[in-house]
Amino acid sequence: MSAYQNEMMELAYPGTGDLTAHFMKDGRSIPVRGFQASEDTVKVRFLPMEAGRYTYTVRGAVSDSGTIDVLPARAGHHGPVRAVGTHLEYADGTLCRTYGTTVYAMMHQPDSRIDETLETLQRTPFNKIRLCVFPKHFIYNENEPAYFAFERREDGTWDTSRPCYAFWDRFEERLCQLFAMGYQVDLILFHPYDRWGFSSMSHEDDLRYLDYLLRRFAAYPALWWSMANEYDVMPAKTMEDWYGIEAFLATNDPFHHLIGNHHCISIWPHERPYTTHVSLQTGALNRIPEWMGKYRKPILIDECGYEGNLEQPWGSLSAEELTARFWRTMSLGGCCTHGETFLDPEDPDEVVFWAKGGTLRGESIARVAFLREIMEEIPGPVEPVITGFCLLRGKTPEELETMLAGIPAEQRVYHERILAMEPAERERFLDGQVQYLGCCGAEAILFYCDLQTYGRFTLELPAEGSYTVEVIDTWNMTRPIWSYDASGSVVVPLPGRPYMAILARKNH
Amino acid sequence: MSAYQNEMMELAYPGTGDLTAHFMKDGRSIPVRGFQASEDTVKVRFLPMEAGRYTYTVRGAVSDSGTIDVLPARAGHHGPVRAVGTHLEYADGTLCRTYGTTVYAMMHQPDSRIDETLETLQRTPFNKIRLCVFPKHFIYNENEPAYFAFERREDGTWDTSRPCYAFWDRFEERLCQLFAMGYQVDLILFHPYDRWGFSSMSHEDDLRYLDYLLRRFAAYPALWWSMANEYDVMPAKTMEDWYGIEAFLATNDPFHHLIGNHHCISIWPHERPYTTHVSLQTGALNRIPEWMGKYRKPILIDECGYEGNLEQPWGSLSAEELTARFWRTMSLGGCCTHGETFLDPEDPDEVVFWAKGGTLRGESIARVAFLREIMEEIPGPVEPVITGFCLLRGKTPEELETMLAGIPAEQRVYHERILAMEPAERERFLDGQVQYLGCCGAEAILFYCDLQTYGRFTLELPAEGSYTVEVIDTWNMTRPIWSYDASGSVVVPLPGRPYMAILARKNH
Repeated sequence: MSAYQNEMMELAYPGTGDLTAHFMKDGRSIPVRGFQASEDTVKVRFLPMEAGRYTYTVRGAVSDSGTIDVLPARAGHHGPVRAVGTHLEYADGTLCRTYGTTVYAMMHQPDSRIDETLETLQRTPFNKIRLCVFPKHFIYNENEPAYFAFERREDGTWDTSRPCYAFWDRFEERLCQLFAMGYQVDLILFHPYDRWGFSSMSHEDDLRYLDYLLRRFAAYPALWWSMANEYDVMPAKTMEDWYGIEAFLATNDPFHHLIGNHHCISIWPHERPYTTHVSLQTGALNRIPEWMGKYRKPILIDECGYEGNLEQPWGSLSAEELTARFWRTMSLGGCCTHGETFLDPEDPDEVVFWAKGGTLRGESIARVAFLREIMEEIPGPVEPVITGFCLLRGKTPEELETMLAGIPAEQRVYHERILAMEPAERERFLDGQVQYLGCCGAEAILFYCDLQTYGRFTLELPAEGSYTVEVIDTWNMTRPIWSYDASGSVVVPLPGRPYMAILARKNH
Repeated sequence: MSAYQNEMMELAYPGTGDLTAHFMKDGRSIPVRGFQASEDTVKVRFLPMEAGRYTYTVRGAVSDSGTIDVLPARAGHHGPVRAVGTHLEYADGTLCRTYGTTVYAMMHQPDSRIDETLETLQRTPFNKIRLCVFPKHFIYNENEPAYFAFERREDGTWDTSRPCYAFWDRFEERLCQLFAMGYQVDLILFHPYDRWGFSSMSHEDDLRYLDYLLRRFAAYPALWWSMANEYDVMPAKTMEDWYGIEAFLATNDPFHHLIGNHHCISIWPHERPYTTHVSLQTGALNRIPEWMGKYRKPILIDECGYEGNLEQPWGSLSAEELTARFWRTMSLGGCCTHGETFLDPEDPDEVVFWAKGGTLRGESIARVAFLREIMEEIPGPVEPVITGFCLLRGKTPEELETMLAGIPAEQRVYHERILAMEPAERERFLDGQVQYLGCCGAEAILFYCDLQTYGRFTLELPAEGSYTVEVIDTWNMTRPIWSYDASGSVVVPLPGRPYMAILARKNH
């Protein structure tokens, strides 16, 4: 049989029961466990990440063996996303910048709504979506889903040994539609907003659920595991439970998808080795350099608020503000996530996109598309450029001494005052000093002016090389070139409006 | 002779030398020291704060005595401003809300420029101005003034025993013009931006300078003492020096003007008894409730950035943002300060209003006028209403226990998580939770929506009484009434735009 590199392939057998397959190539063997796909079919799924001939053996409820000729990856099939330093790459080495959106309860809506949502998503700049496996019970999320992931036991709890095939088939069909559209799906495995009991299953049930999910889905390349949305406000789970879930995902996923955990109040310990990236709910995007420095992992702003008109502060950002949050994030080398929360008070179904999907009407989307077009011209990952007083952060006493010695005496009083501040106060002060300035080595420098209405800005370019400098209006989506040949310290004229940016790209 | 209550009156004598007067009424005696007003005139100035007959005696270089019939205050003459709790009042009990602006180096410009500045200031909503006694050396502040406060000694240092009368006469004339226009003048006594040596005089010289200034100016009611602009970045002064300056002002000013001190990085210890109010340089207006709670003194946001186009972040706020800073401040019961920093790159004189004065072109001024009109309908001081998670701040363990016991179990997890945060992280989290909600007892509730684009907002009004509720567009300056008779919890429809506010005033 044949398959394509970086695409899921499966072996299907009639019957029931457990089975394990081994896929072998060049002396390496990857064990993969099968799953019950329906009452009378058992499957095992594999993600070949190299082209060439694999052999396989299946043991357990079925015995089988054979060969697979894996053809080279087709265009656009880059393999699963990996964390590499502070950025993301596909398995084939292609840089991955995500432009996310959010439809938490998408999968638990009527078919017609999901169709409408997918049609909408096809016409956006997004390439990542956050959505939940379990249904969501929350404001504007009251409708009862048609299917649940498992059958119930007689006592009303979920029997995680009996998957509801209709649920999983339908879920998978929709996932595959998203994959075909080029979306990475950041699958939210648990969440607190629940009236059905999925948030308070036993740890054993949690792992049995994950076991089925991994066996069934892990061979799809474009999936990420988000352990939870707001893990920290699920009183039924302890930190030990979360560590167990994390370890289970890391050791039972043969294809090593990204693992993150999203918080409400208490940031997840992202330094944990199995946690691949830093998933954050925050509007404090000026703290990205701090988090990137602390964790040295990719920063994913998975929730920074939504463009909309809800009564909740998180659901009533202007398009300008959400656009600004994308620029703040990306100028510092992170990835940001969109969501839309317009509530039509006349709509009895309370269809709010961030929860149920439907159609989009916001004005930030076009600006995210414009940002994406610009970012795609930056040839590699962006990291923050720390400037001014923020250079005082995270230094050893020796480093500070050297640094202060290099500062003219009349300027040093500022630094000394900052160092003398009470630490918590100092952090809050320095939070206000962050500039949205990032660079891709010496290849590109990106400065986002944010709300500031500068009439000019002095950009420090490397003295060597020549740069093309453009002045970007991130709201009006224009990007006239100011200079085709700039280098060193240059004073770039700006129009005195908010939401401007400057991009300098090295000429070759 | 006669005088008016709450207006400066003076006794002038030919000659030179020190003198002290005592002004007596109803058995109380106020000693006031005189000053050399010119080479051949010595004066003593008094601020009668009661109507009726005073007697006085003068001793020293001159001996004199007499009576003064003090007529009741004329309209608009309310006496000096006092701090009362967390708000300001004039001596006659009238509530004082300040709408400040900034022309630091106004007094050190050519006469024609000062004339132009005063003409400009007359057509604004402002009633307070911050300006420096000493000239300013800083970006866009390079011009040499015509006069200095003192003559120089042979070694080049300032001889504070020899005032330059031309300087002081001119300064005083301009002050009086400001007073006549209804301005409170927040006089900045020291500042670091200096090439002449005024920032590094000896402590003795500092006090001799203040002595002259107090003797000469203290009888003017509409003056405040701002010990410094950015006191903390003046390396020549120690904290002990500042405490000495503070004590000198407090004990040598017979009329007890307000005393504040303005910082750059390290907030002044505003809890000090002689410090009458909290003068702040900050854009973190969400921290006003914290500071008001800590100091229980009036909060004056004396520097929150300026509307303009400078390259410096503090000098490139949009009109929208500066307007928002006024609303954030005033909805929480503080007073805010405007400044304008438009630089015309073609202007060889670099006339930037915040420094030199001239004309204003910004768009925030009209909005400050609109805000002032609204605030004047609120019959008393506003204090912050603490809501949501911010209620966790500043509680004792016992108070917290009681509070948590009153929260439904499913909500308590949020509070517990917040309490479990590392303290510095918790403060930064709670900073993001502040609402711009204030009240004047049960008389008025003011909610500023800030950047949020709410489609509606649930306002909690007292159940007793009836309120007139208006929906204010703070940018477009409209304030349609939504209800003439609202009470209890009401859902106010909002247009989904930023910069809205809701004001509810009790009907009588």
